[in-house]
Amino acid sequence: MLLSKLCSLRTKEIPADAKMKSHQLMIRAGYMKQVANGIYTLTTLGQRACLKIENIIRKEMNSIDGQEVKFPVVMPREMWDLSGRYTSIGNEMVRFEDRSGHKMLLGMTHEEASVHLAKNWISSYTQLPFMIYQIQTKFRDEPRSRGGLIRVREFTMKDAYSFHENMDDLNKYYTKVHDAYMNIYKKIGLKNYISVKSDTGMMGGSVAHEFMSINDLGEDEIIICDCGYKSNQEVAESIFDKIVNETPNGEIEEIFTDEAKTIEEVCSKINCDIKHTIKAVAYAVKGENTIVLAFVRGDREINEAKLKKVTKKDIAPFSAENDDRLCAGTIGPINLDTSNDIIVVYDESLKDTINMIGGANKPKYHLKNICTSRDLPNVEYYDLAKVQEGDTCSVCKTNKLKIVHGIEIGNIFQLGTKYTKSMDMRVKSQEGTEFNPIMGCYGIGVGRNLACVIEDNHDDYGIIMPKEIAPFKVHICALRLDDENVNKIAYELYNSLEDFGFETLFDDRNVSAGNKFSDADLIGIPFRIVVSPKSLENNIVEIKDRATGEIYKVSPNDVLTKIVELYHFKDFNFEI
Amino acid sequence: MLLSKLCSLRTKEIPADAKMKSHQLMIRAGYMKQVANGIYTLTTLGQRACLKIENIIRKEMNSIDGQEVKFPVVMPREMWDLSGRYTSIGNEMVRFEDRSGHKMLLGMTHEEASVHLAKNWISSYTQLPFMIYQIQTKFRDEPRSRGGLIRVREFTMKDAYSFHENMDDLNKYYTKVHDAYMNIYKKIGLKNYISVKSDTGMMGGSVAHEFMSINDLGEDEIIICDCGYKSNQEVAESIFDKIVNETPNGEIEEIFTDEAKTIEEVCSKINCDIKHTIKAVAYAVKGENTIVLAFVRGDREINEAKLKKVTKKDIAPFSAENDDRLCAGTIGPINLDTSNDIIVVYDESLKDTINMIGGANKPKYHLKNICTSRDLPNVEYYDLAKVQEGDTCSVCKTNKLKIVHGIEIGNIFQLGTKYTKSMDMRVKSQEGTEFNPIMGCYGIGVGRNLACVIEDNHDDYGIIMPKEIAPFKVHICALRLDDENVNKIAYELYNSLEDFGFETLFDDRNVSAGNKFSDADLIGIPFRIVVSPKSLENNIVEIKDRATGEIYKVSPNDVLTKIVELYHFKDFNFEI
Repeated sequence: MLLSKLCSLRTKEIPADAKMKSHQLMIRAGYMKQVANGIYTLTTLGQRACLKIENIIRKEMNSIDGQEVKFPVVMPREMWDLSGRYTSIGNEMVRFEDRSGHKMLLGMTHEEASVHLAKNWISSYTQLPFMIYQIQTKFRDEPRSRGGLIRVREFTMKDAYSFHENMDDLNKYYTKVHDAYMNIYKKIGLKNYISVKSDTGMMGGSVAHEFMSINDLGEDEIIICDCGYKSNQEVAESIFDKIVNETPNGEIEEIFTDEAKTIEEVCSKINCDIKHTIKAVAYAVKGENTIVLAFVRGDREINEAKLKKVTKKDIAPFSAENDDRLCAGTIGPINLDTSNDIIVVYDESLKDTINMIGGANKPKYHLKNICTSRDLPNVEYYDLAKVQEGDTCSVCKTNKLKIVHGIEIGNIFQLGTKYTKSMDMRVKSQEGTEFNPIMGCYGIGVGRNLACVIEDNHDDYGIIMPKEIAPFKVHICALRLDDENVNKIAYELYNSLEDFGFETLFDDRNVSAGNKFSDADLIGIPFRIVVSPKSLENNIVEIKDRATGEIYKVSPNDVLTKIVELYHFKDFNFEI
Repeated sequence: MLLSKLCSLRTKEIPADAKMKSHQLMIRAGYMKQVANGIYTLTTLGQRACLKIENIIRKEMNSIDGQEVKFPVVMPREMWDLSGRYTSIGNEMVRFEDRSGHKMLLGMTHEEASVHLAKNWISSYTQLPFMIYQIQTKFRDEPRSRGGLIRVREFTMKDAYSFHENMDDLNKYYTKVHDAYMNIYKKIGLKNYISVKSDTGMMGGSVAHEFMSINDLGEDEIIICDCGYKSNQEVAESIFDKIVNETPNGEIEEIFTDEAKTIEEVCSKINCDIKHTIKAVAYAVKGENTIVLAFVRGDREINEAKLKKVTKKDIAPFSAENDDRLCAGTIGPINLDTSNDIIVVYDESLKDTINMIGGANKPKYHLKNICTSRDLPNVEYYDLAKVQEGDTCSVCKTNKLKIVHGIEIGNIFQLGTKYTKSMDMRVKSQEGTEFNPIMGCYGIGVGRNLACVIEDNHDDYGIIMPKEIAPFKVHICALRLDDENVNKIAYELYNSLEDFGFETLFDDRNVSAGNKFSDADLIGIPFRIVVSPKSLENNIVEIKDRATGEIYKVSPNDVLTKIVELYHFKDFNFEI
């Protein structure tokens, strides 16, 4: 590929909103171009890297007996009515009517399609287990796309679905997929990634893991313990200090708190410890008039994922200011009128607490001396709070927990029979009875993984592409192509490398050496070959390793051999 | 791959509407499953074949310096407003609003996206020519999907876009793509295909070719002459007999034709030659109140593509019965009231005709003795008619033309500057002035090509997959796996073939030999290996060539060598 003809541009300009290095570098090096909010065209550079990631994924999936299929992007409503997701999924799913008025949707995930494919065709336990997967375009109408390819609306995803006779079999296969995913991340060149327990969200099911690329700018919080415990914040558990051995000060009393509304204002006003306060957090239930009120100790935060699970409601943060059922700023558990569609839940941090301060449910007043077991006698407590850095690990019960940030680079779910039941897929058992197969599902986004690889592999000068997924294997910089010898040697090298199967980017432009070098560093092809009049005087060309900076000086005749050696040829697949 | 775990089913049932052999066989052999009207899931078998076709296409595109990119499926309205196609394309294009109310569409083709990518990045003539392509899912809301993968609504397509400095350069590249397409068809195993001149349709531009797989059930008519002339009916030309040397019978006269309305009824009623009649064909203009009336000699048919080009109107057939501006059954060119949005056009077949019979524009009457040059003095004639079998070739002016049917398997267009002008893509010339690059675009549908390959490669027993695109390379039928020796040898063969890189389908099911053989014939893997207790007595396994029926008897130890030989290993790419 001649660089002069590459449909791409290197630039110093970066979009104002590009905070992540991968976003900046993929724009600056011309790996992609934005088309609309959360929608990109991948250029020759970006798409070639993605194709290589896809092939690495494909090989790992095939190695665990995955069968590649292709489900449609556009599906009819009826299929999704069976699982109930046509209505349960919000407007992140695109719905439209076709020319005959039939309701259609753009598939965000393909559980329904996979059961549709397997149903009626798979009729006996002897045909289980099997796994089908596809690598296909998906569109999810994300409310806040960001970070370049990190969170987009349209993306290429490998999604896989497995079918099993029993939980044992699913568990065995689930572990296989887990390992295959870890292989994929290693092969594509990620450096710092872990798998953590996670929430099953809209997929249904029980056990789930997310794979996380550790990154300070990641949106996910990951709880880590030296003992080996790892979990997404959404489902993390911990042990934290309780207030014990305290004596009740007496009965509940009203105290005037004037304009103090937030926990911090109240603590400052009446000079009390935040751990002695009861915080109220209000949520609206989507599509209902209901309010969910969660009470939690003042120093803890509500975990929405846990709250959704406990209340089984699709909730969103809500300002009490806008609703006269609540007295914003002084909401408390005592004397609270819950007759008007208000659901109240309590976090475990409030269990058996003594001498607490909470809102009085009337303006400018709070209550003190609340003892939860005495004053809220019939209350159930749930784990609704986020884990905090410094909490004690609930597994080893010794270490302090740490929190790091991560970007989700894959997820795996044990789905159970949610879809095979609702879509009535039945299979004959060895005993001749019928059962609904147990499913697992497994997803990995191609573009986001590319972005994370670049997060892990770059320096001040640009991208450092791992050998396995580099869009080109070699980058030739010919300095002074008007020099007859340079011209001859450079084209000879280009042709011999290409003929051998090394995809080569050849900078044939009439620009300065500095310009060529900075473009090569920015694009980040693993090896750069410089052909210049000066070095050719000594019958030498320079090969520079982009990652290590190491320079090899070899005669033009030895370049191919050296590149073969540097690529450990035998380990490599040279197909795109 | 163990056949027992293949997510697929062989069946004898075929859908009632499946007229084409490829449709029947792809359903019967389990290559795909229908999800909705014109929407299919490709199974392991279908998708593996498609991936191989994609890779053959990819290699040919790369060999002519194509750069693989990936455009989005979902695009914003604004981009398509620039080219005018947001409104000019009908409801075959899916439009929807995203969650923020922004108007979006599903891309049917990506001229706009390709110019968006190249614009601002390609600024100098030195960067031309270049070609970018993608292999991506497309959705077109076809009014009549049919024939399995022949005409679907969702499909995978390779679409390519090239940019040039001048027509010479485009012409040169256009020829290269033409040759690459012919290579692709040969490599994937099509047997009977040609390229023909075609209409440019909604793409704009001038020169265009379609590639046609010759097939009696194809929807396209292809005009062929032994001299080498080939053309799609839409743009075909011919010479046909004119009525000459006739003397006018006199002035126009009304004749009572009673209830005779069609040309045939009129001819029969008044006993005249169909070549002496003037036929009126009415069309509605989409989105307007206008009627297009085309007059043509009674024995010829109107070619809608030509009519669209001449009138520059998007027309659809129209029944005059429903409109009181026309007197259905007796519409004629004389005394026709065209004041109410009626556009009238005349086909060349009517030029200088003498003693013609046409409608009188009042019920039950026609007119005779119409002499077009005398009675319609200021009329322009256009080529609006279909070529008919037996017409004389307009190129050699000697041979009679033949008509065959075909299925369009690809198309290439010289687009000109329609998109670079409307989207304001400007590039600096050598002289320092600016110009809009000239574009070409090139499309090929993956699934439809697979269907056509099966049309060309099947027998009464099933599919005969060409080696190059077969989903598996070898199919092992183990008869009596309960026999220890069969079990051992069969698994050894399976493992050695897989290890070598031959994708192998292994029928490990406990079913009869007949069942295994008929399934193998139906699926159509190029080579079937039979391992049976009987043949193993002589230390023999049988390899059968699905295409020729030839049988090779070899010792189990020699199977791998024989398969390598049969596949001419060196010529092959064993990657999916």
